[in-house]
Order: sequence, then structure tokens, then C-alpha cells
Amino acid sequence: MTGDLLIRSVRPWPNSLDVPTVDVLCSNGLVASIGTALAAPPGVPVVDGGNGVLLPSFTDAHAHLDSTRLGLPFRPHTAGPSLHELIENDRRNWRTAEQTVAQRATHTLGRTIAAGTTQVRSHAQVDVDSGLEKLEGVLAAREAHADRASVEVVAFPQCGILREKGTADLLEAALRAGADLVGGLDPAGYDRDPVRHLDVVFGLAEKHQRGVDIHLHDAGSLGAFQVELICERVAALDMRGKVTISHAFALSTVDADRQRELIELLAEHDVAVTTVAPGTRDPLPLRELRWAGVRLGLGQDGMRDYWSPYGNADMLDRTWQLAYRNGFRQDALIEMCVDIATRGGASVIGHPHGLTEGSPANLLVVPGDTVTAAVMDRAPRTLVVHKGRAVAAHGNLTP
Amino acid sequence: MTGDLLIRSVRPWPNSLDVPTVDVLCSNGLVASIGTALAAPPGVPVVDGGNGVLLPSFTDAHAHLDSTRLGLPFRPHTAGPSLHELIENDRRNWRTAEQTVAQRATHTLGRTIAAGTTQVRSHAQVDVDSGLEKLEGVLAAREAHADRASVEVVAFPQCGILREKGTADLLEAALRAGADLVGGLDPAGYDRDPVRHLDVVFGLAEKHQRGVDIHLHDAGSLGAFQVELICERVAALDMRGKVTISHAFALSTVDADRQRELIELLAEHDVAVTTVAPGTRDPLPLRELRWAGVRLGLGQDGMRDYWSPYGNADMLDRTWQLAYRNGFRQDALIEMCVDIATRGGASVIGHPHGLTEGSPANLLVVPGDTVTAAVMDRAPRTLVVHKGRAVAAHGNLTP
Repeated sequence: MTGDLLIRSVRPWPNSLDVPTVDVLCSNGLVASIGTALAAPPGVPVVDGGNGVLLPSFTDAHAHLDSTRLGLPFRPHTAGPSLHELIENDRRNWRTAEQTVAQRATHTLGRTIAAGTTQVRSHAQVDVDSGLEKLEGVLAAREAHADRASVEVVAFPQCGILREKGTADLLEAALRAGADLVGGLDPAGYDRDPVRHLDVVFGLAEKHQRGVDIHLHDAGSLGAFQVELICERVAALDMRGKVTISHAFALSTVDADRQRELIELLAEHDVAVTTVAPGTRDPLPLRELRWAGVRLGLGQDGMRDYWSPYGNADMLDRTWQLAYRNGFRQDALIEMCVDIATRGGASVIGHPHGLTEGSPANLLVVPGDTVTAAVMDRAPRTLVVHKGRAVAAHGNLTP
Repeated sequence: MTGDLLIRSVRPWPNSLDVPTVDVLCSNGLVASIGTALAAPPGVPVVDGGNGVLLPSFTDAHAHLDSTRLGLPFRPHTAGPSLHELIENDRRNWRTAEQTVAQRATHTLGRTIAAGTTQVRSHAQVDVDSGLEKLEGVLAAREAHADRASVEVVAFPQCGILREKGTADLLEAALRAGADLVGGLDPAGYDRDPVRHLDVVFGLAEKHQRGVDIHLHDAGSLGAFQVELICERVAALDMRGKVTISHAFALSTVDADRQRELIELLAEHDVAVTTVAPGTRDPLPLRELRWAGVRLGLGQDGMRDYWSPYGNADMLDRTWQLAYRNGFRQDALIEMCVDIATRGGASVIGHPHGLTEGSPANLLVVPGDTVTAAVMDRAPRTLVVHKGRAVAAHGNLTP
């Protein structure tokens, strides 16, 4: 459902304190015109941007809506540090949550939208314990917010594909049930057989003509080897533009020459990369990736779940994290982080948008003297627009 | 000025969701009793804690109140990356701020208090360009908030001591003008002569019987060497308990054996350490420092100034940063960060406080299911108490 809307008094990025405010007219879900003192066509709702900064809406390019406990009573963290311990801890606990996956995912997706995100790629765990239950919960959340955000869902083998019999079949069932992409997880480091793991992932992608998004925490030369394996399959199956590597710690844990090779490989195969701005891992080479033309997005990862207490559904907060973790002080670099969190992520999921006339009217207004100041202030969002409709204002979803 | 106060309905740390709420009676600035349904003595004001988490108030153990631009129009960052470029950039710009140092420091100290901090150690730059102007501004801010917070001021040679003639004399003048401690800055890496630099710092400290707080960004073996030089002077002058090393990047940039040696040296000489949870430097070995008994505090560093756009006067936000940068997920570790930010910093500045009867009633109430949840939520503070008086509520200073 698309809409018409006139937004009064905003300062579109790039901006500064002394730029005059403008109005933005949205028609049929697109940005129709940007100018001063625009007239409201008859019947078109008018909202006040309060002289805020106008940005493209955020894209959360890497969420785990199925696991969230945001809004529920806080539970102390009970897992050990290894991936296996985290997986087992989640299995022990997720069924006893006070709400269903659908309720929890719907709540957190709503908060995500209210904080300015209208494009989301969420992973949904598919494994022999939970079957398709978590996927169905995320699909229900997508449906509940269908008019407020565009949501892609990845069938994500959180427990590996090869370690538990039946997982590959479940992944295929997930694609038939509504998942948009096939996921993967550390084909070597966790599943212990990179070639067979990737053969299953890309086999399903080819058979069902879907994209791929692979969690690759494996670092150093082992991670770099798997980046090569992935690119080989992208070339063989002609899947340029349809594959994403999430986390991609390999890129920040090899030497500069090898890093350059990997970045060129990603660019050549148009493989996208997403990061969640982790607190302890070395940051990805953001500038080098962008200079090479690699599509690069930002995501929130899990949000207060059985894996970690962090995450609050706020992509502006996550953008701050990305800038802080990179030690960026210059406005141009902090604005690059905003670009990664908005247009960058949109390019990863294949729904580009922006602030130009004719673009999808997926927009965000936030208080702030400048874009950088808005990142530092992280004030509640004045307005969130999806396909020309106001979907949230002053931090709350519109009814 | 101390006060009496009855705080109703709070959950003192340690706590959990099912702990019954208690009341806290403060008398003559101290915690007099903690219990259920306490009676309010005649004339004692009563405030509602709203079932929030009760913590000791924060101690900002490393602030730069003199440089802040919080609350003023945002200015893009104009400095190059080196320390020298940052110093020169500040010199070019600070005099043209829209407000005086005193006004800016007073505003930011007020926001710091409203966010739950009632003990502060602030550095004030002393150099041949600004003379004692910045110090006087910070002293004025301290005076303006004298009833709301305890503030220590360090005479800080931000531009080195040896590089510009007259700085040592200015440092001495600063001590006579009201500074509490003598500062220092990278005796080797910036001032190029560690022995002479430290001789000036400790010479002034001995002559005026003041404490010392030295910025030591120098990393690796050069930083470790200076930790030794500092400890030698602490032993020679019998200054155990009176010296702090800020940043102390040496500790996270040497091998494990050398790190252990340095930590033992700090413990033996009772030299405190402060960190600001930087975004790119490796975190300090927090647990090892605490196990060894080294006093360890957290600070905010500069806040939106000519050095950096980061910093928002909120020590709860900074506590979140400390936990996030260390990758802590377990509640006990996140609560250790809270302890560093509250009691830890108080032990650095020598004003211990806590939640036990007889402690100074420097307290903080914040919404949250648990202490860890409060760190993740970072909600506005319900109540801030200093010496038994309510000094802020719901994010605003009380009149």
C-alpha cells in the first residue's frame, strides 16, 4: 500500500545549520518533489518535520527477529561463551518465553520501525529442534507490519546444516513456506565441511532461485578461503548481486595484501557484506569496501535474547556504534556510517532508495543540528515514512 | 550542605525482578537505614523511587569539562588526527565559542549530575595560550553546582610541560588558584623527556602536597617504561594512594607476562587507573586489575568538543560502552562495569560511597528490571541524590 503525504519543514541531508528548510511531497509512495512552501494537493495529509534532519529510512540488513525478548522481563544471561554453548542455551530456553515467537518478533519489528527502519532482512532459525516455528513467527511479524516495512527473511541454519540430520530438508521446506533467502553458518568452523555445506546452500538457492546470506565468523586464512569458495559458486551459478556475507571477520583478520585481494574478489562477484559493528572484533575496512564498490550494510543482530543482552531495535544507536568502533571523528566519515545504515543496506537487499525525486518515499526525520549531530544525539525520531505513508511519529507507531 | 530524605520504593543492587522494594532513609547526608515501610521523620521530604534500581551515584573519574560544547550549536570536526593537530585545532577555536568556559562547563556538569553522577574529577587545560582561564571556568562550574556534586580539578598540561616555556610556572599558579591535583601528558611520547616531565609533575605534587593524575596514551614498552618511572616516584615520595594513571594503554599493548608485572607494580604502589572505554584501543584488563586490588574508575573524557563529537554527559551510557567494548554478556561482568563506574571511580578520587548504612548518601535510582537491564535500557534517571539531598529527578536538575 502506497500513500501521499506532504512533509513540512525538514532539512535534507546534506545539510547544515544554516540551510533553509524545505517541504517534501510524496505521491503514490514516491518522492514527488522537494521544495519550499509546497502546496498540499487536496486530501493529502500534512505532517510537520519540525525542522529536523531528513534521511532515507534505515535498513536493518542483519536482524534476528525470531530470538528477541525486547519488552519482556529481563532474564540474566545463562550461556557459556562458545557458539555451541550459546546454541544449547537458546534451545533450553526459547520455548519458555512469556510470548510466542510471532508476538515477540512483531513487538521488536514495531520498535525497529518506530526508530526509523523500514527495510529489514531478518534471519529466522531453522533447525531440527524448532522446525519452522521460528520462521513462521517472523513471517507473522512481517505480515503484521506489512504496510509499515519491507521485510526479507533468511532461512538460517543456526545449528549447522550437516551436524543434525534433516536440516537441509527443513531449509527447503522453509523456502517453500515463505523464506526469501537461504542462509549458512561458518561452513568450516562450525559445520566442519565447507564444501558440502556450501553445496547444500547454493544447491537450494539454484533450485529455488533465491538469494544467499551466509554468517561467516571464521577469521583469518580459514575465513578468507571460504570467501573464495563462495565467490567460486557465485561465478559458477551466475549469482552476482544475489549473495551476502554477514560479519565477514576474515576481512579484518588477514594482512593488507590479502585483504585487498578479498575485497576485489567481492567486488568482482558483486557479493555484499553486512556488519553489526561488534564491540570486540576489529572493524571491517569500511572505506576500502566502499571504494571498491562492494555493497555494504549495517544490522542490529540479535536484540536482547538468549544470545546477548545488547540490542535495542534502534538503528541510529547502531550507526553511532559503527562510527565509535571505527574511531571516526570527522563528519564525512560519520555520515558515511549513516549512508551504510540507510542506502548501503538498501542496496544489499536490493531495494535502493534515497532523497531524490522519483525515489521510494522511505524516509526518516530526526532532530539534530546536522546529520552528525543527529547521530550523536540519538533523539527519538520525529517521523518515519514508508512508501509515502507516515508509519511512526515521535517514537511511536502510528495507528 | 547535607540533607535528610526518605526514598520510597526502590530495589537496591544486588537485586532481581522478584525482590521486594524497600525504602531508604538518609540523615545528615548519610544512608541511615534501609528497610520496608520506613516512617518519615517529621519535616523530612519524601520522594518516590518508582520501584527503580538503586545504585551508588556515578563517579566520572576522567572528564574535560573545560572543552565541552554540549548544548551549543554543533560544529563539524575540523582537526587532523594527530595529538598535535588536535591541540592546534582547539587553540584556533576555543575562544570563539558562543559561551564562556564557565558557562559551558556549568551546563555540562549540570547534565552530568542530572544523569546520575555526583562525583567528578575534571581536568582543566593549563597552557601558555589559555593561561588559567580554563581552570577558572571549571572552578566556577564546581562552585555553581557545589551543593549537587563533589568536583576535583586537575591542572592539566594539555600541550606538554617542556615544549612551551612557562608551563611549569602556570601549573604551580593553577595549584595556588584552586586546582586539586597536578596533571601530566605522555612524558615521553608527547613531551619527549619523561624524566624531566615527571620531575616537574612530582616536584609540584610534593611541594604543594597534592595528588597526581597523568594522561598516559603511550603504548607498548614505552608506556610500560613510564609506568615504572611513575611508580619509582610514588615510592620515593611516599605517594601511595595519591596517584592515578589515565588511559594507561600500555597495559593492553604488552604481552601477558609484562602486563602482569605492570599490574603488580600498580597494586604495590596503590596507583589508580582510569579508562574512558575508547572505541578503537584494546580494552584494559579490567578483571586482572581488580583482582590485583588496583583502584579502577571510568570517565567520560571530552564531551562534544573541538577534540571529538562523542560524549553526552551520561555515565550510564559510558558504562554500557565499557561493557560492550569488553564483549561482556554475563550479568556479573556487566555489573562489574557498573561497580567500576560508581564505587570504583569513588575509590580513585578517595571519596568511597556505597549502599550500606553509614555510607554517604550519594545515590541514583534508574528504571530497569535488574542492574544489567538498566545498563541496556539507559532510561532517564528517576532520582539523583547527593549527600542526602535530591539534586535531580526524571532527567532534570531540581531547582
